[in-house]
Amino acid sequence: EEKEKDTNSESLVTNFSNIYASDLLPTRNSEELTDQFLLEVVDILLNYIKKTYDEKSKVLDFHHPHQLLEGLEGFSLELHDQPEPLEQILVDCRDTLKYGVKTGHPRYFNQLSSGLDIVGLAGEWLTATANTNMFTYEIAPLFIVMEEILLKKMYEMVGWKETEADGIFSPGGTISNLYSVLVARYKRFPEIKTKGMQALPHIAMFVSEHSHYSVKKAAAVLGIGTDNVITVKCDERGKMIPSDLEAKILQAKSQEHIPLYVSATAGTTVYGAFDPLDNIADICEKYGLWMHVDAAWGGGLLMSRKHSFKLNGIERANSVTWNPHKLMGVPLQCSAFLVCEKGLLQACNQMCAGYLFQPDKQYDTTYDTGDKTIQCGRHVDVFKLWLMWKAKGTRGFEILINKTLELAEYLYKKLNSRENFQLVFDAEPELTNVCFWYIPPSLRRIPNGPEREKLLHQVAPKIKVRMIEEGTTMVSYQPHGDKVNFFRMVFSNPATRKLDVDFLLEEIERLGKDL
Amino acid sequence: EEKEKDTNSESLVTNFSNIYASDLLPTRNSEELTDQFLLEVVDILLNYIKKTYDEKSKVLDFHHPHQLLEGLEGFSLELHDQPEPLEQILVDCRDTLKYGVKTGHPRYFNQLSSGLDIVGLAGEWLTATANTNMFTYEIAPLFIVMEEILLKKMYEMVGWKETEADGIFSPGGTISNLYSVLVARYKRFPEIKTKGMQALPHIAMFVSEHSHYSVKKAAAVLGIGTDNVITVKCDERGKMIPSDLEAKILQAKSQEHIPLYVSATAGTTVYGAFDPLDNIADICEKYGLWMHVDAAWGGGLLMSRKHSFKLNGIERANSVTWNPHKLMGVPLQCSAFLVCEKGLLQACNQMCAGYLFQPDKQYDTTYDTGDKTIQCGRHVDVFKLWLMWKAKGTRGFEILINKTLELAEYLYKKLNSRENFQLVFDAEPELTNVCFWYIPPSLRRIPNGPEREKLLHQVAPKIKVRMIEEGTTMVSYQPHGDKVNFFRMVFSNPATRKLDVDFLLEEIERLGKDL
Repeated sequence: EEKEKDTNSESLVTNFSNIYASDLLPTRNSEELTDQFLLEVVDILLNYIKKTYDEKSKVLDFHHPHQLLEGLEGFSLELHDQPEPLEQILVDCRDTLKYGVKTGHPRYFNQLSSGLDIVGLAGEWLTATANTNMFTYEIAPLFIVMEEILLKKMYEMVGWKETEADGIFSPGGTISNLYSVLVARYKRFPEIKTKGMQALPHIAMFVSEHSHYSVKKAAAVLGIGTDNVITVKCDERGKMIPSDLEAKILQAKSQEHIPLYVSATAGTTVYGAFDPLDNIADICEKYGLWMHVDAAWGGGLLMSRKHSFKLNGIERANSVTWNPHKLMGVPLQCSAFLVCEKGLLQACNQMCAGYLFQPDKQYDTTYDTGDKTIQCGRHVDVFKLWLMWKAKGTRGFEILINKTLELAEYLYKKLNSRENFQLVFDAEPELTNVCFWYIPPSLRRIPNGPEREKLLHQVAPKIKVRMIEEGTTMVSYQPHGDKVNFFRMVFSNPATRKLDVDFLLEEIERLGKDL
Repeated sequence: EEKEKDTNSESLVTNFSNIYASDLLPTRNSEELTDQFLLEVVDILLNYIKKTYDEKSKVLDFHHPHQLLEGLEGFSLELHDQPEPLEQILVDCRDTLKYGVKTGHPRYFNQLSSGLDIVGLAGEWLTATANTNMFTYEIAPLFIVMEEILLKKMYEMVGWKETEADGIFSPGGTISNLYSVLVARYKRFPEIKTKGMQALPHIAMFVSEHSHYSVKKAAAVLGIGTDNVITVKCDERGKMIPSDLEAKILQAKSQEHIPLYVSATAGTTVYGAFDPLDNIADICEKYGLWMHVDAAWGGGLLMSRKHSFKLNGIERANSVTWNPHKLMGVPLQCSAFLVCEKGLLQACNQMCAGYLFQPDKQYDTTYDTGDKTIQCGRHVDVFKLWLMWKAKGTRGFEILINKTLELAEYLYKKLNSRENFQLVFDAEPELTNVCFWYIPPSLRRIPNGPEREKLLHQVAPKIKVRMIEEGTTMVSYQPHGDKVNFFRMVFSNPATRKLDVDFLLEEIERLGKDL
């Protein structure tokens, strides 16, 4: 029987060498062939998934751009006039995965989003198969309703009444943060939509020095200008200092600028710090500023009864960014923008295009949510989250999130006990970020000072090069403020275990001890 | 053996009633269970694909939002604290597809994007499994290089030199059009990035009355204001009138406004018209305006040696939007923004975030293209297009596109020969749009005038209601300018055949003859 199977699969492969895309559906009587081709693809994907979860497999097999362009072992990326047979397409799929990065690998720690949730993946496969667009209820009825249900759960967790809240899923946290500036500006100055910035007084926005660059980017895109984004100081832990915020607001006012907007961060990108939301809310109320909370990274903690207190005060925000594709492990992308005023998104963004948003439909056209957005067509990002929520329940997310925080604590304790590692700031992790330097033996002999700093700055990049070339693990590094390059460890992958944390430290030491 | 199979699959279903998401990978020794679950999902998807391509199946099974919210035949959309077993998740997947819209159905004509390309679908399944992010080469090496290769092919087809062109894939045509305004503004006034619109003179933008609403939306978002988007008149066929463009530019100048930007359309949304690009380019050169071509819809014709002449002059544009997810049938979303100046996107958008775009990497960091974008994280939209291009070749796209244009011509001729249908404008289709009214017998007795117009305005919406309720086909309608509601037929689905066109006309007549 085993023999027979082999023969079958061989004959299958042989078949595809003479079969082309034009032989598949919608070509008549090609149902079986279409099934066979897609099952071959799925077989490749299932093998990849198993490898992804196997910590003994490599995280990546690094090659330089010019190597990929030249073609690796016959893997040609060039596109031609004539079609390739489906057998080649299957080989290309295998090669694409082979030379990629396994972002679900238990030892992939490079970004805030990692892991490969099986139910979320199933949801994304279905989304691709449904291949529809979020602009109207007409062509995406279930997905539009699922978005509403998800947003309601999220308002509830933020602490807003469903009757006053609104929101939309957007292509990433940076666009969600852009929405926050857009609606804050429109709320105060509705004439912006028709008259533009020239009808407005000089406005000022405030972010902390540890905030994500997306708020500045929004200021550049929206015609506000990055000079009008005022940086507020942080404490040693990376939290915005409320008294400095107030001072900066007063300074702006003294220059006849109109303080409009503050973005507080719940989970900063590098330190994983939570700004003091209640104190910031007090100041926003006092001076009439729009309070946005960028909880793209930390928002997931709202699912955890143990950790949600870290976001106390978020219920006082005017708007919130929350990316389920980060801490909650939803496949990329899945980002929600939430705003505590019904109708504002619609008023700010609607253009009432007649060809799309016909008012004379038979159903409740408030479900044609596409006119709330800055997009027209919009990818279905909600189904995978909805399906995961069904499959895990709120408690399932809680368990996963609590576990990642335990790993961060484990790493923090490990680092504290090892003399060749040094923490960037000595405080228990509030989120899963842990920032540290590896100090090679050669550096331990050098006294603190510019010479040591200069050498230390080169350590993390050098280790990272070796790490990528060996493909054993991936972790990010960066300088920050006056701190030279350090490693930023983050956990969001449910596949990661304590032994993978141990491995990371051993591996950094192995790769860096001769530096 | 057949019997045994049944038993197997039954025992599989029974199994999943006690299995939860937490039993799948990364849980130890769950490889087989994970495979089984995903194969069950794929089985559901393969059945859906077969139904999609079966013209005898319904396009949709319509329900109102409140019906979906109440739960249909036990299909509850509510989310709970506790997990549901995987058996329920599989049922939910089936139900989600059951109550959705089959956008790949041969009789689904509702939007510019339709069809379900099998290779594109396989590409999207792989993309979901790879689950990575386009911000850096580090974590998406192949996808970044594939984007470069695709963009080069597209520059070449537009008629630009690869050495001077640049581009990026974005989440949809509206965002691509927003990029065009953003870089046009930055090119002329680089101080916009830091100083904002208040440092700029009063600028004016120009679009035709048939252009897509996204350019106005961009003006609202970017702080330019919709009042500063000047509408240029079109001829009866929906093409921008160059002399009116010139007059409007001169008028703006006489008001001390700075004419900055024109968006010409290659394939308008409703009429499928091509603006006279060469004439518009002449005017842009004369007055120093940025010329953008919104070829989101019509760009696909560049793949056709027979039809590409309709875009003559596009090579003189400064920027182009081209959505492969429309005429080329790539799964949603896939939109390219192309600009004929290297480095401009980067200069306009970059923020040089240290945690992401480390300059001290071992590879050529010009491949870290994420800082060119207005996003941070970016979904991989290129792989499905790259895989389809490999599988079809340029010639394969050409064949499909030529076929959709033949269908439009077939419909045009059919309409011309039937007295109960009336064309909105009597000209051979240039793209696949065909606009027409159905005139029910009761209306044919009423003379032209406001009373008839009022009644005719209600015909298309009423037919659409019945069409959706019966679920047999879907086609869009809208009013436009002084024209009352008419049907806009578009073809982009390779599954559609002449008999489906015949069916549409018969069906409209059947549903509307008593009106």
